[in-house]
Amino acid sequence: MRKAIDAAAHPALLLADVVSSLGCTDLRFDEWKLDVALTAAQKGLMLPPGMALLAVSKKALEANRSARCPRSFWDWRPVLESNAEGHFPYTPATALLFGLSESLKMLSEEGLENVFYRHARLASACRRGIEAMTLKLFASDSAEYSNTLTAVAMPEGFDSDLFINHTLALVDLPLGKGLGKVKGKLFRIGHLGSINELELLGVLGGIEMALKSFGVKLPLGAGLAAAETYLLETADKRLPL
Amino acid sequence: MRKAIDAAAHPALLLADVVSSLGCTDLRFDEWKLDVALTAAQKGLMLPPGMALLAVSKKALEANRSARCPRSFWDWRPVLESNAEGHFPYTPATALLFGLSESLKMLSEEGLENVFYRHARLASACRRGIEAMTLKLFASDSAEYSNTLTAVAMPEGFDSDLFINHTLALVDLPLGKGLGKVKGKLFRIGHLGSINELELLGVLGGIEMALKSFGVKLPLGAGLAAAETYLLETADKRLPL
Amino acid sequence: MRKAIDAAAHPALLLADVVSSLGCTDLRFDEWKLDVALTAAQKGLMLPPGMALLAVSKKALEANRSARCPRSFWDWRPVLESNAEGHFPYTPATALLFGLSESLKMLSEEGLENVFYRHARLASACRRGIEAMTLKLFASDSAEYSNTLTAVAMPEGFDSDLFINHTLALVDLPLGKGLGKVKGKLFRIGHLGSINELELLGVLGGIEMALKSFGVKLPLGAGLAAAETYLLETADKRLPL
Amino acid sequence: MRKAIDAAAHPALLLADVVSSLGCTDLRFDEWKLDVALTAAQKGLMLPPGMALLAVSKKALEANRSARCPRSFWDWRPVLESNAEGHFPYTPATALLFGLSESLKMLSEEGLENVFYRHARLASACRRGIEAMTLKLFASDSAEYSNTLTAVAMPEGFDSDLFINHTLALVDLPLGKGLGKVKGKLFRIGHLGSINELELLGVLGGIEMALKSFGVKLPLGAGLAAAETYLLETADKRLPL
Repeated sequence: MRKAIDAAAHPALLLADVVSSLGCTDLRFDEWKLDVALTAAQKGLMLPPGMALLAVSKKALEANRSARCPRSFWDWRPVLESNAEGHFPYTPATALLFGLSESLKMLSEEGLENVFYRHARLASACRRGIEAMTLKLFASDSAEYSNTLTAVAMPEGFDSDLFINHTLALVDLPLGKGLGKVKGKLFRIGHLGSINELELLGVLGGIEMALKSFGVKLPLGAGLAAAETYLLETADKRLPL
Repeated sequence: MRKAIDAAAHPALLLADVVSSLGCTDLRFDEWKLDVALTAAQKGLMLPPGMALLAVSKKALEANRSARCPRSFWDWRPVLESNAEGHFPYTPATALLFGLSESLKMLSEEGLENVFYRHARLASACRRGIEAMTLKLFASDSAEYSNTLTAVAMPEGFDSDLFINHTLALVDLPLGKGLGKVKGKLFRIGHLGSINELELLGVLGGIEMALKSFGVKLPLGAGLAAAETYLLETADKRLPL
Repeated sequence: MRKAIDAAAHPALLLADVVSSLGCTDLRFDEWKLDVALTAAQKGLMLPPGMALLAVSKKALEANRSARCPRSFWDWRPVLESNAEGHFPYTPATALLFGLSESLKMLSEEGLENVFYRHARLASACRRGIEAMTLKLFASDSAEYSNTLTAVAMPEGFDSDLFINHTLALVDLPLGKGLGKVKGKLFRIGHLGSINELELLGVLGGIEMALKSFGVKLPLGAGLAAAETYLLETADKRLPL
Repeated sequence: MRKAIDAAAHPALLLADVVSSLGCTDLRFDEWKLDVALTAAQKGLMLPPGMALLAVSKKALEANRSARCPRSFWDWRPVLESNAEGHFPYTPATALLFGLSESLKMLSEEGLENVFYRHARLASACRRGIEAMTLKLFASDSAEYSNTLTAVAMPEGFDSDLFINHTLALVDLPLGKGLGKVKGKLFRIGHLGSINELELLGVLGGIEMALKSFGVKLPLGAGLAAAETYLLETADKRLPL
């Protein structure tokens, strides 16, 4: 993206929604010359929700100074001014700041490379499980696969919104909906932050059960077997903790 | 305020900052025809900080629709739309929502009249304590006294900002600063939310100690005696729990 | 047991260890004429560990009065005396008492019959999963099956203690050991308290993975398929919440 | 005590109840040749209640092996055996063990000398406050004063048990009772663990208020003034944190 912007010598700011990627996959704000990166507490940072975190480039700060458009969220200028002196302009969510200090320690103890590898491995296991259930991944290009979220195409003849309601009622498992054009056509599985192998297997088992009882034909256990096989194949390749 | 606006047939919206009053003193949004009232979690609602709560009139909602000015905070429209269907447009601070449910239960169990009376009584005890220390309340008109906060004029020849630093260092008691025109001239004592008689006495004791060691001449114990006397006089008049 | 004791007119006290059954399966202290029943906070009561709970019959209280044997645990007499007046003889674990109040509310909201049925159904699913893995349940008589714990015979040629270490290292899943005569010969799966279907599937998945990589021959996914099949067959038969 | 036992060449074990002193005042188990020292989580260790901690000498361990008397508490032998291998014989109060790790860190950060000095200083302030209220300390010999607890003689003509009830009802302050021979004759103020200057002043204020409204003649504020004066005199002498 940055290369295209630079090639066109376009003045656009490069904004990245990293809500579902910071602390899960590699992100290099300076090296990739991002202008704004935005995340939240409750994903890769493993905290309760209630805090947004932003990184902002000098260029974005300058653009902000002259912007005239209505904002739909915070004005970050008073925050930046107060933060420079070690303060906040308003009372911050202090409990989450203490939590952030702890979650950064946890990520540092596991090691970012290990954290990224854990996400990549679980994502790959999830995709193999889904395909072994005879379902199709929504992303047709494997280069576009996400390590934090898997979107699954709902089989022909079934509405994914109804399926999501069914899954929640059957096994208390909340799946994400398809929005806009893909409403009713896909469901999304989140696998990021504080998650391990057994939790992923539990989720895949719940999806198998929900699909079967929703009328989708599939061999029970096949998705789990595929995920387990992959996890075992890669068990030795785990980076050392 | 409302009467003046109505008398002038002025189209202005009436906005009330109730951060330090909701859940502490009487507030009647509809009866007083307020247009916006804004509070936060960490005062009268006794929660950790991290959530704003607003009440908005129809008139304010309409004004919002046509407003063109840059906002410095949230756009509430997506919230209102989603809330109408029982949802949030973004992930809310769920832990605080559970906490809010509990603090509303607590306020209801104590009874709003009792809650308001407790704040009024402790505020009155605080003012008597301060005056017995030979200090002056910043509010010259007793009709303007607040039941949640007492601003105290710093004696001549002393800087209140330095005094506040001294108090924090001496007895680990954070007082509020004077802002703008009154910078250096007053300090503020908060007495709202989850607070009782002994906590107030501890605060007054800390202020006495800090004043004395800061060089202000005052009889130690006098402020506490005045507060205790008032609390005892009114002990029988506590509304029944 | 009670019938045999009564038939023999034997004076023995009937003591029941209900640590892993209270709040999980039916227990009728008075009706079954138990003399002592003992449980703990961290099983069916779903609390952190740190509290024992006992029910004691009049007969056991009387026996206690004349007992001369060294005790290896608390003397309950001072507790009973103080409790009668609403006190404790020593400072109790107050945080757990508040927790107990909440867990009793949760059990009551779900309904004891539903709680017992949930345990029975998950236990049955666990046993079917284990058998489909071609393993053998340690209990040969189905009348002896437990709804809170499943003991699994380790296949010939494998040591269960080593397997338990392997499972913990591979998928961070702690299994219970065989003790005394059965040391090295079985492992135990706990499925009680705050547990649901997906957690059980995750545990079965972890066991499949650990067995496979430990050298036990088994078809991956077969245990999970059996458990899922049973859970789906009985999904409609869940008692209404 | 140890000197007297040694001088008499008596085989008695020296047992110390350090519940209200460990983490508050100096204690040297080895140097003072204690045989058993017993404390709990909720005092100087600043944790919720629910855990006992013991130090035991070799001599006491040997005596324990041959003891035949009924015990009224735990048998520590299974604990010692399991602890030696890094285990517990029963499920321990894990939440308190994590808490203990944190409270030991806190004590270490403050420094034991500072912790002891803080307790000594607050105890001294408490005693001066009580005496300025025209009350008498129960301990007639100042060498017997405790730095964690102050026992106060109830003035002639007043029952301390009734006074303790009155104080709890009036200002929600729980005081300790006199037991045995001194029942009705004294009340006890605890000032140990996580406690600071303002909390002590709040407690003294509550006692002044309760005494006054109980009919005891005393000058309100005098006790607080004395405590404040002492705390100010010693404020510079605080050991550096």
